[in-house]
Amino acid sequence: MSTASTTQAPKGLEGVVACTSKICFIDGDRGVLAYGGIDIHELADNSTFEETCYLLWFGRLPKASELKDLHQKLAAERSIDPGIINLLRNAPKNVAPMDVLRTAVSALSFYDADDKKDDHDANVRKAIRLTSQIAMIVAAYDRIRKGKDVVKPDPTLSHAANFLLLLNGEKPSQTAERALDIALILHADHELNASTFAARVTAATLSDIHSSVTSAIGALKGPLHGGANEAVMHLLKEVDKNNANPVEYVRNMLAQKKKISGFGHRVYHTEDPRATHLRVMSHDLGVASGQPKWYEMSKKIEDFIKAEKKLNANVDFYSASTYHVLGIDIDLFTPIFAVSRISGWTAHIIEQLDNNRLIRPRADYLGPAYPQHWVPIENR
Amino acid sequence: MSTASTTQAPKGLEGVVACTSKICFIDGDRGVLAYGGIDIHELADNSTFEETCYLLWFGRLPKASELKDLHQKLAAERSIDPGIINLLRNAPKNVAPMDVLRTAVSALSFYDADDKKDDHDANVRKAIRLTSQIAMIVAAYDRIRKGKDVVKPDPTLSHAANFLLLLNGEKPSQTAERALDIALILHADHELNASTFAARVTAATLSDIHSSVTSAIGALKGPLHGGANEAVMHLLKEVDKNNANPVEYVRNMLAQKKKISGFGHRVYHTEDPRATHLRVMSHDLGVASGQPKWYEMSKKIEDFIKAEKKLNANVDFYSASTYHVLGIDIDLFTPIFAVSRISGWTAHIIEQLDNNRLIRPRADYLGPAYPQHWVPIENR
Repeated sequence: MSTASTTQAPKGLEGVVACTSKICFIDGDRGVLAYGGIDIHELADNSTFEETCYLLWFGRLPKASELKDLHQKLAAERSIDPGIINLLRNAPKNVAPMDVLRTAVSALSFYDADDKKDDHDANVRKAIRLTSQIAMIVAAYDRIRKGKDVVKPDPTLSHAANFLLLLNGEKPSQTAERALDIALILHADHELNASTFAARVTAATLSDIHSSVTSAIGALKGPLHGGANEAVMHLLKEVDKNNANPVEYVRNMLAQKKKISGFGHRVYHTEDPRATHLRVMSHDLGVASGQPKWYEMSKKIEDFIKAEKKLNANVDFYSASTYHVLGIDIDLFTPIFAVSRISGWTAHIIEQLDNNRLIRPRADYLGPAYPQHWVPIENR
Repeated sequence: MSTASTTQAPKGLEGVVACTSKICFIDGDRGVLAYGGIDIHELADNSTFEETCYLLWFGRLPKASELKDLHQKLAAERSIDPGIINLLRNAPKNVAPMDVLRTAVSALSFYDADDKKDDHDANVRKAIRLTSQIAMIVAAYDRIRKGKDVVKPDPTLSHAANFLLLLNGEKPSQTAERALDIALILHADHELNASTFAARVTAATLSDIHSSVTSAIGALKGPLHGGANEAVMHLLKEVDKNNANPVEYVRNMLAQKKKISGFGHRVYHTEDPRATHLRVMSHDLGVASGQPKWYEMSKKIEDFIKAEKKLNANVDFYSASTYHVLGIDIDLFTPIFAVSRISGWTAHIIEQLDNNRLIRPRADYLGPAYPQHWVPIENR
């Protein structure tokens, strides 16, 4: 039904500029990713997740007092209503953590102190609160499903260290804390990726932050998005279990037209700059933990896919082996992506709400030509 | 960052054709809405919600045996896990029904018999199941929050009649059943409206139906989308409570730059064909129930806004007074929209999954020019 008033877009809206944004800059040809104009490499080397949150939410790096204030606010929000813990306890123990996270975040709206407010400042408070709460939910459900106690948060710890404490019941090593902190920085935002776009489409009806973040979690779950890092680790485990040659294994998968997760990207035509860091982390943590095989296997697969299919590893490929050697369960990989991306999602939702227009495209109708007619059932 | 490989789209993707679809035809210039090519007027006059569901899911009207089969399947799915009823009972009693619906639908995935399957047939089963379950959740939460018993479904009743039974605890009159049935037909689908688009964006990561429908419910909640019918009724109640002249009241709102919900539409440049039916229903039900004032008030506001602002009433405007004289609480208007739109959402999700491509547009970056630099905190 492409008429004078409509324009055809490429499938999947590839290359279509859907909105303006001040949050994230990507140059897919040069392999550049920057938050607020600052290159992801500089942030990964120097920043913290909390500072990155500030940058995404407020558009600039914080001064010392501002960063301290944000630390305190995040720590103060390390608290969730017993109703949410009850919901986690009542969920069947075999439910995927992403399904539980999506449900629990939706339910957080029941208890949000700013539930009836939707001004900019209330939305920033909700962003801070959700950032603390999502980490708590992911960790608490993992403890509960394993029959362990829910761990009390520690307000003196960084976001990364507190999350690892809540997950493992003990304070992490400095190496583990910094590794997760860098992973959180790298995953914090990525412009209009599918989950952020789902969040903005939801927010653009002037719906609330909890609805929008719930949409984002649902979209992140998909194996073409956040779910890819779990698929990568399942592949590595299969190769290991079968004591297979990783290249032969993957070659065989390609011959069977199976998709190899963790390669290629809609936007990057060169290396995903996040993969650059995660490759190094995967290597270094693998060596440090005495489990270098996951990195080695990954590297061989990467080299093969690059040679064979001209596809680069993306953010998901080396996050798999990185998280695995950190001792994190496979089905927590995508929830941990959400623990980070909540910062970017909320930045985009607030930006959308601050200057909103309903996001409502058209479809090209290819069904039975209008008009068909209703006919009585006995004549069909 | 609009480069050679990107194209600018109008704000809110207005007029941008984001995908092809065989489900719904809209001609915004002629005021035509058709499901599977059949005009909404013919369907409203002759069809049932169940038959409309079949049309949306399978692309044609059912034969008698097929319709009977669908009736049986919908009736068989009038069952939800006690875990969901528990969730509804545990929700604080003042929570908005849309927030509860979003959460409960997300939680339905915990108990779905086809949770691990995502082929076309499994998705159709989930669509049928969700259609029955959403109606049950909306009615059950309303009963629970009012301290009433949850009502047992009746497999011999139509979808509309069963919903009214679950809501009110008694079988509806034929007039009420048919009125709701027509309202469900009119709301069942509307091409790439914002909630359906949110559902397709979510599904396009190859996430599951429950994630996608949860996204849709979050988007529907917004006052620029489904939430508008509640806003309309709040306005009518304000006018009534103040014993005001409706035209003067609305004129005053316009002078204060306040938005009048229920008017104008992104796609229709003429009357919304759904409003045509709902206007008649609002009138007839108002007279039949001895409450003609809501229709009369609405008609005066409609005439004034049309003369003053050249805006037509949309689907939300007369659904407000229609639902109100049917005795339905205001905060159930949008949930009832979902009770209907689940049919269209699931049709679109299945269509997306059957021929998928990730929906991932770009943003035009307007933030601090790249490269900015990270500087030590003491130098900021």
